[in-house]
Parts: sequence; C-alpha cells; structure tokens
Amino acid sequence: MPGTIVTDVPTPDADAVAALQGFGVATVHEAMGRVGSLGPALRPIQQGVAIAGRAVTALCWPGDNLMVHAAVEQCTPGDVLVVATASPASHGMFGDLFATALMHRGVRGLVIDAGVRDTATLRELGFPAWSRHVSAEGTVKATAGSVNLPVVVAGQTVRAGDVVVADDDGVVVVPRARVADAVTASQQRVDKESAAREAFAAGELGLDRYGLRPVLDRLGVRYARWSDTPEAQ
Amino acid sequence: MPGTIVTDVPTPDADAVAALQGFGVATVHEAMGRVGSLGPALRPIQQGVAIAGRAVTALCWPGDNLMVHAAVEQCTPGDVLVVATASPASHGMFGDLFATALMHRGVRGLVIDAGVRDTATLRELGFPAWSRHVSAEGTVKATAGSVNLPVVVAGQTVRAGDVVVADDDGVVVVPRARVADAVTASQQRVDKESAAREAFAAGELGLDRYGLRPVLDRLGVRYARWSDTPEAQ
Amino acid sequence: MPGTIVTDVPTPDADAVAALQGFGVATVHEAMGRVGSLGPALRPIQQGVAIAGRAVTALCWPGDNLMVHAAVEQCTPGDVLVVATASPASHGMFGDLFATALMHRGVRGLVIDAGVRDTATLRELGFPAWSRHVSAEGTVKATAGSVNLPVVVAGQTVRAGDVVVADDDGVVVVPRARVADAVTASQQRVDKESAAREAFAAGELGLDRYGLRPVLDRLGVRYARWSDTPEAQ
Amino acid sequence: MPGTIVTDVPTPDADAVAALQGFGVATVHEAMGRVGSLGPALRPIQQGVAIAGRAVTALCWPGDNLMVHAAVEQCTPGDVLVVATASPASHGMFGDLFATALMHRGVRGLVIDAGVRDTATLRELGFPAWSRHVSAEGTVKATAGSVNLPVVVAGQTVRAGDVVVADDDGVVVVPRARVADAVTASQQRVDKESAAREAFAAGELGLDRYGLRPVLDRLGVRYARWSDTPEAQ
Amino acid sequence: MPGTIVTDVPTPDADAVAALQGFGVATVHEAMGRVGSLGPALRPIQQGVAIAGRAVTALCWPGDNLMVHAAVEQCTPGDVLVVATASPASHGMFGDLFATALMHRGVRGLVIDAGVRDTATLRELGFPAWSRHVSAEGTVKATAGSVNLPVVVAGQTVRAGDVVVADDDGVVVVPRARVADAVTASQQRVDKESAAREAFAAGELGLDRYGLRPVLDRLGVRYARWSDTPEAQ
Amino acid sequence: MPGTIVTDVPTPDADAVAALQGFGVATVHEAMGRVGSLGPALRPIQQGVAIAGRAVTALCWPGDNLMVHAAVEQCTPGDVLVVATASPASHGMFGDLFATALMHRGVRGLVIDAGVRDTATLRELGFPAWSRHVSAEGTVKATAGSVNLPVVVAGQTVRAGDVVVADDDGVVVVPRARVADAVTASQQRVDKESAAREAFAAGELGLDRYGLRPVLDRLGVRYARWSDTPEAQ
Repeated sequence: MPGTIVTDVPTPDADAVAALQGFGVATVHEAMGRVGSLGPALRPIQQGVAIAGRAVTALCWPGDNLMVHAAVEQCTPGDVLVVATASPASHGMFGDLFATALMHRGVRGLVIDAGVRDTATLRELGFPAWSRHVSAEGTVKATAGSVNLPVVVAGQTVRAGDVVVADDDGVVVVPRARVADAVTASQQRVDKESAAREAFAAGELGLDRYGLRPVLDRLGVRYARWSDTPEAQ
Repeated sequence: MPGTIVTDVPTPDADAVAALQGFGVATVHEAMGRVGSLGPALRPIQQGVAIAGRAVTALCWPGDNLMVHAAVEQCTPGDVLVVATASPASHGMFGDLFATALMHRGVRGLVIDAGVRDTATLRELGFPAWSRHVSAEGTVKATAGSVNLPVVVAGQTVRAGDVVVADDDGVVVVPRARVADAVTASQQRVDKESAAREAFAAGELGLDRYGLRPVLDRLGVRYARWSDTPEAQ
Repeated sequence: MPGTIVTDVPTPDADAVAALQGFGVATVHEAMGRVGSLGPALRPIQQGVAIAGRAVTALCWPGDNLMVHAAVEQCTPGDVLVVATASPASHGMFGDLFATALMHRGVRGLVIDAGVRDTATLRELGFPAWSRHVSAEGTVKATAGSVNLPVVVAGQTVRAGDVVVADDDGVVVVPRARVADAVTASQQRVDKESAAREAFAAGELGLDRYGLRPVLDRLGVRYARWSDTPEAQ
Repeated sequence: MPGTIVTDVPTPDADAVAALQGFGVATVHEAMGRVGSLGPALRPIQQGVAIAGRAVTALCWPGDNLMVHAAVEQCTPGDVLVVATASPASHGMFGDLFATALMHRGVRGLVIDAGVRDTATLRELGFPAWSRHVSAEGTVKATAGSVNLPVVVAGQTVRAGDVVVADDDGVVVVPRARVADAVTASQQRVDKESAAREAFAAGELGLDRYGLRPVLDRLGVRYARWSDTPEAQ
Repeated sequence: MPGTIVTDVPTPDADAVAALQGFGVATVHEAMGRVGSLGPALRPIQQGVAIAGRAVTALCWPGDNLMVHAAVEQCTPGDVLVVATASPASHGMFGDLFATALMHRGVRGLVIDAGVRDTATLRELGFPAWSRHVSAEGTVKATAGSVNLPVVVAGQTVRAGDVVVADDDGVVVVPRARVADAVTASQQRVDKESAAREAFAAGELGLDRYGLRPVLDRLGVRYARWSDTPEAQ
Repeated sequence: MPGTIVTDVPTPDADAVAALQGFGVATVHEAMGRVGSLGPALRPIQQGVAIAGRAVTALCWPGDNLMVHAAVEQCTPGDVLVVATASPASHGMFGDLFATALMHRGVRGLVIDAGVRDTATLRELGFPAWSRHVSAEGTVKATAGSVNLPVVVAGQTVRAGDVVVADDDGVVVVPRARVADAVTASQQRVDKESAAREAFAAGELGLDRYGLRPVLDRLGVRYARWSDTPEAQ
C-alpha cells in the first residue's frame, strides 16, 4: 500500500510511555532481549534530552519532504515523528518551520533517517531531534510516499503506534504489543542494575558477581605473568 | 595552472557578506535554488557560531600543509580560509599556530576538507572551524599545490572571491557573481518564512498553506483508517 | 596466545605520564615523529577533558564483553582501559556499571574501538571515554579473547604498559620504551611552538619563519594576479 | 520471539517463482512500485546468475553462525537462505561446507548481510551467493538467534515464505501476499519495455515517448546555446 | 543557471580523443600533472574496456532521472554521457533502455555518480558504464536539473565539451582547453615509461634510475640489519 | 625507528610456504584460531589466484611511493610486497612499472592498503595484487618512511619475515614464529573438513555433526509452527 496515509492509529498507555522514557534507551533495549535499537548512526543534535512517545511514521522519496507535511496532520500530543526515506538520503528534510508546527501539536521530537537543518534554532526552541545527518540542503515536494505504514529506519522496523524512546545513547523502538512487557522487564533490570552498581562501587568484580570465572576457565582462558611473555624481552 | 598562487582577489561587498551571515546557511542555500551546499560531511568543531567571508582557497597534497602557509599570506580581514586536498585525507593539517596567525590578519574562520587539531585551543581562542575530521596527526611541507585557484570541497566548487557562509548547519558557498542576488532572495525567503512560522505556530498545516492536498491527490495518495489495515489484525 | 590474560604489567613513570597528559595528543604525536595516533575515528563523548595513563588492553569478540570483565581486575590506579574487537563492531560494550567499577579502582578513562552507552551518565560521573560509536546495544558474555596482549586499535598497535594520552583531538599511544624520549621531545616542541606562537601573533608568516619561500620556488610554484587568470573574465 | 525456530513455512507457487526469476530484479522492483530492493550493498560473488526462491531466514549474532546451522534443517528444494545479523558484521559466516549441505537439499543460493568465504570454491560448485562482504574470517557458535522470523536485511524486511529474486543487479524481495500481483505487473512491464526498446533502437527519444517535454517546460527548464554561456568565454 | 539545457557544445578533435583513449587513464592523469581523476569510487561494470569521448553532462535530483532523458537528445556520436546528482544517491538511474537509445546515437559509454542497473544486459550489449553503485532501484521523473552545465562528479569538475577517458583504472577528465597538451604530455610519458619498463625488466632499480638514493639520504633514512633490530630477539 | 630500511630479513621455510598457499586463506585463518585476517576491505584485482610468500613491508606517507622504491631492492624470489600508509590514502601507488621490476626479482604479488593502477596490465602480466582501492591517481616521492619495520595493514600487524597468504577470500598473515604450527593445524583442519564435506554431501546436518542441538536447547531456543505465529494471520 505505498501511497497510503493511515489515520486513527491507536495510542499507547501514557503511564507506560512515561516509564519507558525514564528507563532510557539502553535499559529498554537490554530488557527487551537486546532488540529494537536503531543503531549508532542516528545521533541527537542536542545533549541531555530523553523522550518517549507514540510513533507516527512517514516514508519519503529521497530529497522530497512532501509526506512529512502529510504526517504533521496525523500527529497528536505526545507523539514522536519518525521519518524514513526510500533510499539513503542526506538532505536536511526537516527544519524550524516543521518544529514550530509540531510543537503546536504537542509532538515530543523527531527521529529521521536523513538530515535535519536549522539545528541551532531547534536547540533554542527545545525541540529535540535524532538524525543521521545535519544538512542545510533543502528538498522538493513532488513524489508520493506513505504515512503510518511500517518503515525500516536504520535497520529496524518501526510501526505507527509503536513507542519510540530516544536519549543520548540513540533510539529504541518498542512494538505496540510489547509495551507492557517492556516496562516490567525494564523495571526488573533497573532494580538488578542498582544492586550491581552498589556492589561495583564497593569493589566487587563482574567476574565474581556474574559467575564468569568458570566461563573463562571452560573457554580455555589462562593467566600468564607479563614477565613470562615475549613482550617482556 | 597547478603550482600557482593567485594574488589580489577581488573582495565582495561587506554589507552583502554581513547580510548573508545573518541569514544563515539553510536560508541562503534555499534562496539560491538549493545549490552551493558543502554537504553534511563538514561539521563545525564549535556550536552556535555563524560566519561569512571572502573565500581564500588552498589546494594541498594529502598529509602536506605547505600551501596553507602560502595561503595565510593571501588572507585579509574578513576572509574565510578554505582548504581542499588533492585526494581524501584525514590529517590534522591546521592547528592553533595557524589560528593565531590568521586571527592576527582578521580572518573569520576555517573550512577544511580534511582534519583540524588543537580543537580545545581553537574553541578557547574563539577561532571557528568546519572540517571533515578532527585529528591530531600532523603533516609535512614537501609538495606543491595552489592558492586561490578553484577547488572542489565536499563536492562543491569554491572559487577565490566567492562568499562562504558557515554555521551549525554546515557551509554554503555563494559565487561572486550571485552575491547580490543571494542577498535579495534570502531576504524574500526570510520574510516568507516569518509569515509561515507565525501561521504554523497558530496551527495552520503545511498541507493547506502550500496547497499540497491536491498534489497528494494527483499522485494517488489515499487515506485509510488504521483499523482497516493489516497492522490492526 | 589468544585466550590469555596477562598480569603484572609494568607501570610507567608517573611523572612522565603526568607530563604527557599536559602536553596533549597533538604535541606528543608530533614530537614522536608523527606516529602513534589512533586516528580521527575514535571521538570523545565529552569535551575539554585530557587524560594519560598506563594501557590495560582487552581483545573481545564482536558483540561480546566477557573480556572487559576480565580486564577490570587487571586495572590499577592511573590506568586507561583500551578495548579492541576481533572484527569491526558497533555495540555499546561499555556502560555506567563498568565505569563505576573502574572508578573504584582509580582508572582514568576508556578508549574503545567499538561503542559505549549510558553516555549521559558517564558524563555525569566524570568518567571520560573515547569510542568509535555511541550505541545502546548490549552484548553477550560467551566468547574468549585476551587481556594485556598487544591489540590493534584503529590501525595502531597498543601494548599493555604503553602510555595512552587522550584529549579533544583524539588518542595517541606512546610505546613503553619511548616514554622518556617522548617527554623530552614534547617539551622541546612546546618550547619551539611557544616562540612560534608569539611570532605569529605579532604577524610573522610561516613562509618566512620556516624558510618555505625557497621551497615553493624550488617546487616551481609561481605567483599570478587574479586579474590575469581565466577566473577574472 | 527471539530464540525461536519457525517450521512449516508455506511455499509460494512454483510457476510464479520461475516467472519472477525470469523477469529479473530490476523489473520486479519496478513492477511492484519501486519497493523491495535490498539496495546496492549486497553484491553477487559471481556474474551472470539469476535465481528466485522461497526465503528461509536466519538471524545471527555478529561473528556467530549457530543459527545458520539451525536454518539449514528448515531448507527445502527451491529455497534461498537469507541471513541477517543483529548488528553490522563482516565475518565470513558461510563457506563451502554450508554450500555442500544446502546443495544436497536443493537450495538455490544465499543472500547474507555479512560476509562469505571459500568464494572460489562456491563459484566452482555453482552455488551462487549475494553478500555485503567477502571475508575469510570465521565465526563461533555460541549465541541464540532465530530462524524464519522476519528479519531486516540491508534496510528491507524479509519474511520466511517471501520470494527472493537475485541477479547481477542485486536482490529484491516479494512479500508472500504480493507474489501473484508481482508476476502480473512484471509481465506488463516487460511488454511495455519491449515496445520501448524497439522504439529507442529506432531513434525515438524518451522525451517524446514519455511526454516529458511539457514536464520540463512546466518545471521552467530552458534551452540555451553553449556559445551564449559563460563557459564559452 | 539551474534549469538549463545547453545545446551545441563544441566537439573536441577526434584524433586527440582517439590518442587519449589509447594512452589510458593512469597515463593521462599523470601527464596532466596528476589532476583530473574521478577517484576510486567510480568503478566499471565490465573489465578490459577503454573509451574516450566528449562529455555530455546531466545534473539530476536524487532518485530522479528526468534530466537523463533530456541529455540523451544532446548526445552525438563519440560522446560519453556523464551524470551527476544534486546530493549522494544510489538509485539505478540508468538501464538497458537508455543504453539502447544511446547506442543508436553512437554514444561510447556512461559515467555516473550514482547507480546503474540491467548490468548483465549492458555487458551483453557491449555498452560500457562506470558507476558508484549497481542498484536495481528505479527512479521518478519529477524534478528539474540541468544538461551540459558544469557538474562535480566524485570531487572533480566536468564541463560539457571536456574529454572523458575511462578504463579499468577509473575515469579521468581532460578540460577542453588542455586536450592538445594532454596528448603531447601523455606521449612523452609513454615514451619515458617504455624506456623505464625495459630497464626495470633488465633489473635496474627505481632507486638508481630516478636518483632516489640521495633523496633517502637527505631525508635521514638509514639502513639496519634485521639481526640488529628488536624484531630479531 | 621510522626512517629505517631493514635488510637481511630471515626467509621462512619454502615447503611451509607452499603448504600454506595450498591450504588457502580461510583455512589458515581458522586453523590459527581465527586470527591474522586482513579483513574484507583488501580485495584482489584478479580472480582465481592464490599466493603465499615472505612479507617485505613498506610504510609510506599518503600520496607518496618513495619507500616502495626502497622496498623493491629488499625483495627476493618468493616474496610478497606489503605496503601500508601512515594514514588512509586512496592513490594508485603501484602500477605496471613496479610489477615489471618485481617480476624480474621473482616476487609473487602485492598487498597494499591503498590503491593500485594499470590493473588491466597487471592482469595481463599475471602479477597478482590485493588492494583497498583501484585508482589511477599517481604519487610523489618526497617523504621518508620505512622498509621492513612492522606495519599495520587493515587492522593487522605484519612483520617482515612473516608469511602472507592471499587468495579470492582476502589476505591472512602468519607470524614467523607460528609458521610450522599453522601448517600442522591447517592440515588437521583440512582433514576434518574433508570428512565433514562428505557427510554434508550425504545429508548429515551440522546440528547433528557438531552437537549443536543441546546448545540450542541450553540457550532457550524453541521450535514453533509457522501457522501458530503472528505472520500466519
């Protein structure tokens, strides 16, 4: 169904979204079983900001932001706009005018597998963005795409209605059907990590805490004194 | 004419340069008809700084900054030094000693399709730079190149006497012959964008403001409710 | 000797390490004869921090941080942990739990030819890191590697006991046997650069200070007035 | 459902698969509306071979081919094995032993978003492969993944039971539900292209055949004689 | 002048073009003073073919081949079509239908800073192509560009009327004004290289033939026996 | 010791070298414990050629092949010339004149972490080469480097006197001290693989042959029928 704009996408539970935002990207990714990451290529244009929200997706032709305009209309408060392109593109498809329109609609931020521009203004406005590129190069409005169909962003499928979480570490997507599970698993992980953090701060080693010494032994890893190695000669 | 240092390059109108600096890279690029961008690969080493000035160009052999020394002598107040290499190179060809020499001459900043180093010091000195790499690796001074001949930087031709504009979004070059036009067109775009910004802040949609609904229709884009899509099942 | 953890690596002279940290990466690299740089691909996750310390090295399988756990135990106050992978990998192999453990042990920072995560927390903790990627993606603990054997990081060999220096310009490694020489040569370079900086601030040109005019002449570089070039027409 | 091996995947219609193989990748991609391409990064290790078949998918941890072994058992005559990794990896995860096992099972070829090895032998055996890398580097068998769950390969979702078509131009995936449509649309395109080919061979221009002259005119494209341009001076 | 199609571009001397084709890319590049190369990213889709001809240039929007259609009409016997895009693009913008049209017009080949498709057919037809990508992904025909204005291809400016030479080593462009000089200089280089080849085949060393021993000495290069180095221990 | 040319490097056992050539790159890499690969970025310019020989190493400045000339003199029959650059470089540093000189000396081939040119001629001459790039761009002869000091090539340390093995799968280096072991281990692996190949050709599965079913079970991998998955709906 290319050439389709999907409306009335269901909204995830607000408390769950807030919880996922609090856990952060690394914790949610780990808690879901190490899946959902959009990888290291999408970077924030700001530092120290974390968001989460319902994904509204747009698929654009490279160098063309027509469908971003169509996507704006589908955005509601608490959403995160997720923009993919049909093939790799570096244009600055999104700038401060779009940010102004989205802030009016209560949108929390942008994730784009292409470029953004007006980045100084976006930082001043407080509209956060994660992108593959920063580029001043603008776009045309000539070719069809889709809104709220599933898209692949940086090697990860994102569906409208999924929850997107983004912070300094990158972006992770939580499928709609896994939101409740992800909250539970993330909370468990946070609890477990708090205990580990305390232990590590007190000097315990991961080798002991996670039972890794027998693993090393089973894998045949052996210890040697530096003075016995070729490096010492 | 490789092996040439061109002197007495004409200076663009100072008011026009100041105006272009104020408009910023994205506006100027768009106003000129979406040309002139040096693309997303050249990034600023600082944040929140915008400059514009006459381009003084240098073409160097990879790993060799001899011609940067020759270019310094051709720099005058208000200039921007633009450095290209004969093939891709990542060396830190420029550091704080060059910045000191250029600041003495009133140069506004550096655009380099290679690396810079001493970046912490450059930020302290307030000498802005846009580069493809940050690298501590130094260079030799052994091979000829040119100064103020046309160079290609990041896929864009830059000629001595052109105006270079740089900010957080990247770098754009305005050919000498188009400077006056670029100012006029940029001012028109700024005016138009101000009105659009106000409208978007008040809730108008780009779909309506730019007349895009008929475009979508003509391209065959259709609307569908999420509950009618395969995703809903 | 893959599958080996080397212990009791010798510690470099503390005064020399402190001196190298003060000189900074670009100076040390240049002073050693333009060798030892880990290149532009490893970038700091923070700004304005400089460190130096004894290298403790770990070689991991991609997507697996088992040997980082083993390496933590080998770290002592003043060390820098250096992590390589057996083939290119982008995972966030290191996060705030490791940082907590290493800070307890007095480790000064991390250099990793892969990804880090929890970067906001690392900045809050004041634990500096240089990495190829920032990524939320976690790892398994299933495959053997080595600790304190020589590793190649970003095209540079690093041996346990070498001194690693890192700042905003990147990372340089000083082989154990060259530490004293590097300090001496760096000091000489700093002295020479101070004099040059003063001269450049007063308007002297590199062309004159470094005797480059005869070099240009010998290479056949000639001067031409812009009005005599094709560009002027 | 990571950690799952899905069995009994439905088999697409054999005639449709044969037809798609005959049309080739570019035609099928175009006929489906310019979707489904796995992009330019996956290249064949041989020249002049075209295949199509049911996708059997495997998702592996980087540097680990355990799940390829599990996938072999799910392969039946006429299948194409499609291997993805949880994050970018360059290992040679597949070599002549796997090819031997798959040829025994009547598998038509391999598509892998990682590396292959034993490429000389694969060419001798006549087992075709499309991969991102050629690499001699082998893998471990230590970490879980999945077989026949949807995977993202080179930015494209591939589901078990989809039809994969591969030739010198790359790889395209046809979703199970669109196979019949893709055959029809491809045949229409082939017919249309045959007529166009004949016309072009006889000297007709695309400008005329596709009615592009009014498009150029509407877009403001104008003609100028070279002697009237700045280049002529 | 974006949005312009330039006609009546002058044709270079046919004998000079034939001579340049015979010399080959590496010789011409070297003879012109090591300039004009389009670098290593543009690769031939065939092996063992060398061409030279007048450049007809097209500048396209990414993912849009409208201007290639416009460029076909400007092509005459002996030309080489050179296609650039306004920003990086990987689409297969050119396939066997275009090749058919161009062969009818006597065009010698294609150089494109994007993708080609139908590569098996292009090889069968004997229509040579040099491209950055091979990709099955097709394009739209919606956005204006230019024909026969100067373009930057892979970091090199190409002007309509220049001579493009392409073979297994890549592509080099000879500016219209330098064609005669390039022929002369290339012939001199070929003569010089023939003598050198004979000498090297007889055992003479480059160190002696090119007088490099004093260069090494002046640069401080010294000889050491392996048994006296740390490697020997 | 930059600026050093090391002479009289020891020669590995000729029978061992011949054996390693016969085993091929993938087998040797695997047999040594999955180390020594120069990775997927160095590709052969020919197909179907395998070589092995003593490494003679050269370290060059980017864009400068002075030290290749110095290295030629150190080459003896059966050697493989290995060229690294001080930082990434794409020049065609090596062409048919060097090949002529090296063939006179009985050198078996070239491995270069940069570019080669005259590739059509090299194939005609039968002089094999593995390189990161093919590029017509030539070099200068102005800057010092070293010959037969350890170099890092594509992330792997290569020492003069090591054995380099290269074929269609890439390049692997066998340290001088491990040559005998590598032969033995490779032979064992070949024997083991022959048995496996026979078993796989007869229909045995890797899951059974390598005892992987319990591994999958221990890792929690479960089987599910496709008709029971969400994909079936």
